[in-house]
Amino acid sequence: MPRRIVSPARLHKFCVSLLKKVGLNEQHATIVADSLLFADLRGTDSHGVVRLKSYLERAQMGVMNVNPDMRIEHEYAAVALLNAQNGFGQIAGTKAMELAIRKAKIGGVALVGVKNSNHFGVAAFFATKAIQENMIGLAMTNASPAIAPYDSKVPLLGTNPFAVAIPALHQRPIVLDMATSLVARGKIRLAALAGREIPKDWALDSNGDPTSDPVAALKGSMAAIGGPKGSGMSLVIDLLCGVLTGSSFTGEVRNITDTSGPAKTGHLFVAMDIKMLGSALKFKRNMDNIILHIKSLPPVGGRTIYLPGEIEFDLENVRSVEGIPLEADVVASLRELATHYGVSIEALCIAR
Amino acid sequence: MPRRIVSPARLHKFCVSLLKKVGLNEQHATIVADSLLFADLRGTDSHGVVRLKSYLERAQMGVMNVNPDMRIEHEYAAVALLNAQNGFGQIAGTKAMELAIRKAKIGGVALVGVKNSNHFGVAAFFATKAIQENMIGLAMTNASPAIAPYDSKVPLLGTNPFAVAIPALHQRPIVLDMATSLVARGKIRLAALAGREIPKDWALDSNGDPTSDPVAALKGSMAAIGGPKGSGMSLVIDLLCGVLTGSSFTGEVRNITDTSGPAKTGHLFVAMDIKMLGSALKFKRNMDNIILHIKSLPPVGGRTIYLPGEIEFDLENVRSVEGIPLEADVVASLRELATHYGVSIEALCIAR
Repeated sequence: MPRRIVSPARLHKFCVSLLKKVGLNEQHATIVADSLLFADLRGTDSHGVVRLKSYLERAQMGVMNVNPDMRIEHEYAAVALLNAQNGFGQIAGTKAMELAIRKAKIGGVALVGVKNSNHFGVAAFFATKAIQENMIGLAMTNASPAIAPYDSKVPLLGTNPFAVAIPALHQRPIVLDMATSLVARGKIRLAALAGREIPKDWALDSNGDPTSDPVAALKGSMAAIGGPKGSGMSLVIDLLCGVLTGSSFTGEVRNITDTSGPAKTGHLFVAMDIKMLGSALKFKRNMDNIILHIKSLPPVGGRTIYLPGEIEFDLENVRSVEGIPLEADVVASLRELATHYGVSIEALCIAR
Repeated sequence: MPRRIVSPARLHKFCVSLLKKVGLNEQHATIVADSLLFADLRGTDSHGVVRLKSYLERAQMGVMNVNPDMRIEHEYAAVALLNAQNGFGQIAGTKAMELAIRKAKIGGVALVGVKNSNHFGVAAFFATKAIQENMIGLAMTNASPAIAPYDSKVPLLGTNPFAVAIPALHQRPIVLDMATSLVARGKIRLAALAGREIPKDWALDSNGDPTSDPVAALKGSMAAIGGPKGSGMSLVIDLLCGVLTGSSFTGEVRNITDTSGPAKTGHLFVAMDIKMLGSALKFKRNMDNIILHIKSLPPVGGRTIYLPGEIEFDLENVRSVEGIPLEADVVASLRELATHYGVSIEALCIAR
C-alpha cells in the first residue's frame, strides 16, 4: 500500500481531539500530542501516532489514569520526586523536566525522578527542553523486560533508553537518543512477519544463544550493545528510574500493550546550566567548531557523517513543511480510531 | 616467566616512596598509590602499577605538575569547576568527588567538573567514594583519540570511560565501570605482539573497514559498542569532560605515554544522595533483593551470573589477603624504577 502524506498541524489536532475523548484535559492532551508529533516529525515513527491506539485503550480501560493528581513527594534544593499517579509519562516527564530546569537555574544542576508513570514516548522530547534554556538535558526511563542480565537467560531488563541534548550556537544541538539494545525490537518483529532471518548479533534465543531466527529471538532476549556493557547500563538505568524512585522492581514494568494493570514505569531527568561552569557563549561556539570539524572529517566509503540527532533535525525540517509520510495501514488504523471515538478525520491527508 | 605475588601494603608503600621522589607530597603520593592499588587489587591491572613508569616520567620531565595549586574556578550550590593545574588526575578527581559529595549532602545532587588534568586511573576509584556516604557516584573522563565519530575514518574520540557506583545493604554495591569501546586497546596490542588475528568486530582499519589484522587496527580506530550508539556516547562524554570544562577540544587529549606536552584531560563527577528521593534503607534493601534475584536467574550454559563490579570485589577480597600477582616483567620494571629513583624494593614479593 502506498504511503499517505499527513499534515502535521491536522494530525496534532486529531491527536488532541482523540485524547480529550478519553478524558484528558486540553493542556494534557496537547502535551501528549506534542510528543507524538515530535516523534513522527523527526522520523522516530515507532514512538509517534502508531502508539496512539494503545494509549487510548489503556486510558479508556482505566489501566492508566487520565486525570491524575501528580504530586511532588520529596523536594530538596537540587532534587525532587514526582508521583505521576499512573498518568501519562509524557505529562509527568514534562512537569519533571521543567522542574529540573527551574532548579538548575538556581544551583547549576538538578535531578527529578518520576514514579508510578507510564510509557513516556521519545526521550529526546524531554532532553531537548533544556536546550532552549542554554542547558544540557538528560532524560531516561525504564521499560518492560527485553534484555537479560549478562550471562542469564531471562529478559529481566528493559531496553531502557536515554537521551542527552547539548546546545550549540549556530549549529543544531547534539541530541543522542538511544536504547541499550543493539537494535529496536520492532526490527525483529518486522523480520518475523516477513519470514526473514536476522543478523546473529541482534538477539538471543531462550537458551541465551545468538540466533538468526526472529521468532526464537522474540521468545528470548534482545542483545545489549557491547554485551555486559550494555546489559550493565540497562541495569543501572533500571535501578535509577525504577528502584530509586520507588516505582518498580527490576522486571516489573508492563509493556504498553499489556492492559492487565498499571505500567509502573519510572523516569529520571537532569538539567545542567552550562553557564555555571564557564561562558555559555564560548561553550556553544566551541560546540559549533567541533560539529563542523567532525562533519569535515574524511568519511568511510563515501558516506555522510551525521552527528547524533542530525538526521532527526533534517527530517523535522522536511516533514514540518512537506508533511509526515504515514504507512497506509497506520492511516487506516487512525480512521478506525476516529470512528470508534467519534472524531473527525477527513482532512488529515495532504492531496498530492 | 612466572608471576610474582606482591604484598599490597608493601607495594603501596613502594609507590608512595617513588611518587615522593619525583616531588609529590605525602598526601598526594598516597592518593595516587591508593588508586594504583585499587586497580591492581580489583584486577584492573591495566590501570595499576604498570602505569607508574609513565606517571613518574611525566612528572620528572615537568610535563605534569607535581605541586599544582588546584583551584575552584566556578562554584554554585550544586556545581563547581576545579582547575587541576596539570596535576595528577587521581588527586584532582579525589578533590572533585569529595566536593560533589559535600554539595550533594545539602542539595541532593551535585556535579563537579575538572579541567587541565591528567590520566585519572580507574573511574570506579572515584565513583565508589559515594557509596560510603549512602550516595550514588558517577565519574567519567575523556581520553586520547581512539574511536572515530560514526562513519568517519578518524579516531578523534577517546574510549572515554565512566563508572557508576550504587550502594546495596548486605550485598556488594553495583559498580559499572566501562569504556565506550568494545574492547580495550591493550587486547589489540597483545594480539599484535603475539601475531594473532583479532575478531572482526573489535576495530576498524584506517579506511574505516572492519579488520582482523591487529596492526591495521592499531593504525585505524577502536570499534565503539553498538556502532553509532557507543560512538555517540563517547562524543557526549568528550563534550561534557573536555569542552564543558574548558579543558580541551575533542581530539586534543594526549596519551599518557606522549610526553610532548600537557595531557589536557577533563573529568566530570556526580554525587547523588539516595535518601533525598525516599528511604535509603528501603532502597538498599531493594538493591539486595534485586541482586539476589539476578544471581538466582538461570544462567546461560552453566556460566556464573556476575553483577557489574562483582568480579572485581571478589578479586579484591582474595588479593587483599593473598597478595597481588604481577607478571615477572612488571616486577622487573618496578626494580628498574627502584634503581633509577633510588628507592628500596627488596621485600616487595611474598615468599611462596
